[in-house]
Amino acid sequence: MTMGVAQLESDLTRLGAVEQRDLVRARKVSPVELLDAHLAAIARLNPVLNAIVTLCTEEARKAARQAEDAVMRGGDLGILHGLPVVIKDITETAGIRTTYGSPLYADHVPDHDAEVVARLKRAGAIILGKSNTPEFAAGASTVNAVFGATRNPWNPALSPAGSSGGSAAAVASGMVPLAQGTDFGCSVRIPAAFCGIVGLRTTPGLIPNDPMALPWDPGQVHGPLARKAEDAALMLDAMVGLDPLWPISVAPTWRSALDEVRGANDIAGLRIAYVSDIAGIGVDPEVERVCRAAVHRLAADGARVDEIAFSAAEGREAYMTLRADWMVGQQFERLHLLDKMGKNLAGNVRDGLEVGSRDMAAAQQVRAGLLRKFRQLFGDYDFLITPAAPVEPFPVEQGFPDSIGGVKLSNYVDWIAPAYLVTLMSLVGCSVPAGLSRSGLPVGLQIIGPRFSEPRVLGLARHVQQVLPIGWPREDVRR
Amino acid sequence: MTMGVAQLESDLTRLGAVEQRDLVRARKVSPVELLDAHLAAIARLNPVLNAIVTLCTEEARKAARQAEDAVMRGGDLGILHGLPVVIKDITETAGIRTTYGSPLYADHVPDHDAEVVARLKRAGAIILGKSNTPEFAAGASTVNAVFGATRNPWNPALSPAGSSGGSAAAVASGMVPLAQGTDFGCSVRIPAAFCGIVGLRTTPGLIPNDPMALPWDPGQVHGPLARKAEDAALMLDAMVGLDPLWPISVAPTWRSALDEVRGANDIAGLRIAYVSDIAGIGVDPEVERVCRAAVHRLAADGARVDEIAFSAAEGREAYMTLRADWMVGQQFERLHLLDKMGKNLAGNVRDGLEVGSRDMAAAQQVRAGLLRKFRQLFGDYDFLITPAAPVEPFPVEQGFPDSIGGVKLSNYVDWIAPAYLVTLMSLVGCSVPAGLSRSGLPVGLQIIGPRFSEPRVLGLARHVQQVLPIGWPREDVRR
Repeated sequence: MTMGVAQLESDLTRLGAVEQRDLVRARKVSPVELLDAHLAAIARLNPVLNAIVTLCTEEARKAARQAEDAVMRGGDLGILHGLPVVIKDITETAGIRTTYGSPLYADHVPDHDAEVVARLKRAGAIILGKSNTPEFAAGASTVNAVFGATRNPWNPALSPAGSSGGSAAAVASGMVPLAQGTDFGCSVRIPAAFCGIVGLRTTPGLIPNDPMALPWDPGQVHGPLARKAEDAALMLDAMVGLDPLWPISVAPTWRSALDEVRGANDIAGLRIAYVSDIAGIGVDPEVERVCRAAVHRLAADGARVDEIAFSAAEGREAYMTLRADWMVGQQFERLHLLDKMGKNLAGNVRDGLEVGSRDMAAAQQVRAGLLRKFRQLFGDYDFLITPAAPVEPFPVEQGFPDSIGGVKLSNYVDWIAPAYLVTLMSLVGCSVPAGLSRSGLPVGLQIIGPRFSEPRVLGLARHVQQVLPIGWPREDVRR
Repeated sequence: MTMGVAQLESDLTRLGAVEQRDLVRARKVSPVELLDAHLAAIARLNPVLNAIVTLCTEEARKAARQAEDAVMRGGDLGILHGLPVVIKDITETAGIRTTYGSPLYADHVPDHDAEVVARLKRAGAIILGKSNTPEFAAGASTVNAVFGATRNPWNPALSPAGSSGGSAAAVASGMVPLAQGTDFGCSVRIPAAFCGIVGLRTTPGLIPNDPMALPWDPGQVHGPLARKAEDAALMLDAMVGLDPLWPISVAPTWRSALDEVRGANDIAGLRIAYVSDIAGIGVDPEVERVCRAAVHRLAADGARVDEIAFSAAEGREAYMTLRADWMVGQQFERLHLLDKMGKNLAGNVRDGLEVGSRDMAAAQQVRAGLLRKFRQLFGDYDFLITPAAPVEPFPVEQGFPDSIGGVKLSNYVDWIAPAYLVTLMSLVGCSVPAGLSRSGLPVGLQIIGPRFSEPRVLGLARHVQQVLPIGWPREDVRR
C-alpha cells in the first residue's frame, strides 16, 4: 500500500479515532502503519503504565494486513475499519487470554467472543490486546494478583482508578485510540476522569452484554473510552444494537450518535443543574473549584446553569445492598472458591450472602423513592452535572482514598458514590475532562442524562472539550 | 348528533374495537350511543358475571358527550376515540375507586391515573369502570373478599381464570370492546384463553408501568384484552411509548402495530415450533387435541410447523423463587398488615421472606441456562406455540385445578407454568382462541415470540382467528 502522506508515528497516535479512521478510508494511512505506530507507543509506554496485560501482536498484524487489503479493494468498510482497540480483561475474547484479573483464570482462553467484541470486529476494529482490571472488576483501583497495578499516564506514581483503569490509561497515553470498558459502579467513568479522557456509561441493554452471569441485571454495562467525545460516539455506534433474545437489550433511538454529536453545536438554552456533591460524601475543594469553573464557562456560553440543592445520599445504602446481592449472583458458580479469591472480592461476596429478600425490598423501596426525585429533576433540567470523582488521583499503592476533604469514609467504595448512584438509577453518565488541578492532574465532570441521552450527553461533552482542552500528559512523565 | 345509520345496541357491542372506532370516526355512531349500548349489555350481563366491580356511568357519559362534540367539531381524534374500556382494579384511576381486590383498600380513591390509563385517555378511550382481580393480582382465579368471584361468560358456573378475569369476562361478553389487564405469571393470557378472546403479554417496559413498587422489575406488564387480534393491536398502539425516565421503558420498534397486523396476510414459510407441554406439568387430552388440530391447520395454510421436544421445566422452581422475592418487594410497605391479607397473598409473602441471596443466585443461574435454550429455539423458529392453559375452565368455587390429566399438582400456581415460564424469559406471549372443546368451552393457543415481536405474534393470532373462528358464548348462558 502506497501512502499519500508520510506520518510520523507519534503524530498518528495523537490523532483522534475519527481522524485516524478517516485517514485509513482516504488511503492516506494504512491499517498496518496505524497498528505499528500504536505498537511503538505501547513498547515505549506500557512497561511503565502496565495498562495492556495481553498483547496479540501477530493476530493484530494479520488483521491489519487484511484490513489494508480491504481498503485497497474498495467497497464498504466498517465504521471502525483499521482502528486498533483494546478490550478489558473482564470481557471474553475468542482465542485471546481472558483472566478476569483473577489467578483462578490466569490461563483461561475463551472459545467465543463476547457479543460486544464480535460487534467491534464486524465494524472493522483490530483487537490489539487486553487491558488490566481488578479481580472480576470488583473495585475502583486497577490492581490484581495476576498482573499487578496499572499506573496513571499523568503521573505513574498515581492510580488510574478502576475498574477499567487499563483501558483508560491505554487511551490517555496514546497506546490505542479507543478502548472498551465495563461500568458497574464507576468503572468506565472514574478511570476516564482520573486519566483525562471521555468515558461513557450507557443505557442498560443498549450495548449487548452477552455473555453475562446475570442477563437480566441492568448494573453492568459496556461503554467506550476515547480521548474525544466524538470518538466515543463513533465507538458507541459500533457497539449498540437490539438483540430481541437478550432480556434487557434495547435499540438506540438514533441512527448515528456521531452525526448527532457533530450536529450538536449550540449549547444555548440547555438547562443544566450543577450539584457538587450528590452523594453526601464531600468533595475535595480543588476538584470542586475546577468543576465549578467549567460549569460557569457553560453558563457564559449560553447554557442555563443552576447550582441546586440535591442529594441522593439515601441511595448509598440501597446500592451497597444491591451490589452485595449482585456479587453473589455473579460469583455463584465460584462460591466454593471464595478462599482463593482476593480479599476485596471475597469480602463483597460474603457481605452478599447475608442479604435477604427483606433487605432487597428495603433497598428497592429507597431506589423507587430516589427515582421520583430524579424524575422531578429531569423534568426541570436536561442534564445534571457533578464532579466525576470527589478526589484527585491518589497514590497507586493506596487503593482508595480513606477520606475526602478531611472527612473519613466508611468503606472502600464510598468515594465512588457520585458514580454508582447514576448506576442505581439506570441513567446515562459521561466523564469528560473539565480542566487540570493545581497539581496538573485532570479533573472530570460527570454529565448525567436520562436513558437514551447518549448523543446529547456526548454533544455537551464535546463542547466542554472544545472550550476547555486539557492537552496531553507531560512527555517526560510518559516516557 | 345525527346518525347516518341506526344500529341496534346488540349489534354495536358485537363489533370489534376497530369497527366501532371506525363507525365513530365516520359519524355513523355517536360515542354516547356506543356507551349506552355497552351500558345496556353491562346491566344485562354483569349481575351474573360480576366482571365490572366499579362502574362510573356518570363520568363516562360526560366523557362520551365530550367525545361526541369532538367528532362533530372535526379535527384530530385519538386512535381509541369514543371507545369504552375498563381498567383492572389493580391499576390506579384518578377519582375512581381502586381496591387492588383488597379489603385494606376497599374505599381507596387514587389522586392520579397510572400512566397507562393516562395514555388510554389521551388516545380517546372512555373509562367505564374497574374490572375484578384477586387481591393484589396474586392468583390465577378472580375472586376476592371485596367483590366476590367473577364468572366465565361461556358458563357462569366456571372460572374465567385470573388475575385479569374481570377484564377478560367483560370483553368476552360484549360489555366493552377492550380492557386493560396486567400480566405477571399468566394474568392476561390465561383469562383470555378461558374466556375465548385475545390477550397479549407484552415486552417488559413497552407499556409504561408507572407507578409501581418495583420499577426495575420486568415481571409485571400491562397488556390489552380484545376479541380480535387487530383490536388488541389497536389498543397496544395507544399504550406503548418510551419514557426515558422510567428504568425499563423501551420504545416500540414499529410505527403502528395495527398496520403491521393488517399487513401480515401470509403465514407461508413461518417457522413454528409446537410443544404441548413446555412446563412438564402435563396437559389435558382435550386441550391438546384442539391445539394440535389448530397447528395442523397452520401447517395446511403453509407454515412450517414442527412438533419438537422442548422442556423448560427446570424454570418452575426458579420462577417460584423470583416470584416469592417479588411478593416481598411488592408488599414491603404492608408487611405489618400480613394478618389482614387473604390466605394466598399472605402465604406468598411469607414464602418470600425466607428467600436469600443464595436462593436468588441459584434461580438466576437456572434462568440464564434456560435463556440459552430459548435463544437456540428462536434461532430455528419464528414462534413457539403451546396450549395457553393445560386445562379447560374449572368450577368457579374450585380456585385452581388440583390435577392435570389425573396427575396431582404440587401447588396452586403450577398449572399456570406454561404462561409463567414465558414471563421468566421476558418473552412475548399471546393467547388466541384455537377452537372449542367437546364441552363447548374455548381453548387457547399461546403464541410465544422474542421481545418486540408483538405485531408478528398478533399477525399470526389474526390468521388463527380468521380460519378457526369460535363465535360467541351462547345467548342463554349470557343472559
